[in-house]
Amino acid sequence: MEQRLTLVTLGVADVGAAERFYRALGWQPHASSIPGEVAFFPAGGMVVALWSRTALAADSAVADRGGWGGVTLAHNVRSPAEVDALLADAERAGARVGRPGAPTEWGGYSGVFIDPDGHPWEVAHNPGWPLLDDGSVALG
Amino acid sequence: MEQRLTLVTLGVADVGAAERFYRALGWQPHASSIPGEVAFFPAGGMVVALWSRTALAADSAVADRGGWGGVTLAHNVRSPAEVDALLADAERAGARVGRPGAPTEWGGYSGVFIDPDGHPWEVAHNPGWPLLDDGSVALG
Repeated sequence: MEQRLTLVTLGVADVGAAERFYRALGWQPHASSIPGEVAFFPAGGMVVALWSRTALAADSAVADRGGWGGVTLAHNVRSPAEVDALLADAERAGARVGRPGAPTEWGGYSGVFIDPDGHPWEVAHNPGWPLLDDGSVALG
Repeated sequence: MEQRLTLVTLGVADVGAAERFYRALGWQPHASSIPGEVAFFPAGGMVVALWSRTALAADSAVADRGGWGGVTLAHNVRSPAEVDALLADAERAGARVGRPGAPTEWGGYSGVFIDPDGHPWEVAHNPGWPLLDDGSVALG
């Protein structure tokens, strides 16, 4: 197995509503998306998708008892101020701030927003994980 | 919010055991990983991490009722034969095959393995999503 990830699919209750949330944060779905059915967001060599959670559970051969399932996404930014700004943007777009921006024990600064379908995103500034111009991360 | 993802953290019961599973599939943790505590796998400009599911739930400001939570990862490969080979490798490494390789309604070929902590990975060949030499995907 090559050490890479092609796609992260977030199961959602209403694809159109979830797409509006991510659009409000500035994301643009790819032209191959099907409005209200599936949204594909190209994201730096991989893809983030939105699809019916019910269909995703069936396709993934898992039972869905609801709630969170042990996966958290993170979006790193270039400064603590950018963490706070993005958390505020997410709240305005309809997310819940689960943890406001604050210094972390690992020497960075982070907070968490939870999207309208319950998927948590950590927003982090990690001085030890520099971001390249294209937003990709280069571990030292 | 820039249209990108920095990190996907998989919550696991035992970081050492989970790391052995991914190592058995050929993945190598970054030197900054802490054996038994956290594993970071650089994955094409982003990172896949393994961390205590209990700690991840607390850090993500969510309740954990167990089970799957609406997120599925996918790893695309270059042929149907590679799908079958990777599913067999994953099963040998300790995964459960949730769905064997088969043609899909979207014109590709895919199957699903479920890692020892219950995280599903679709393994897919999608002729409409060509992979570049570095494994990144280029949507048309």
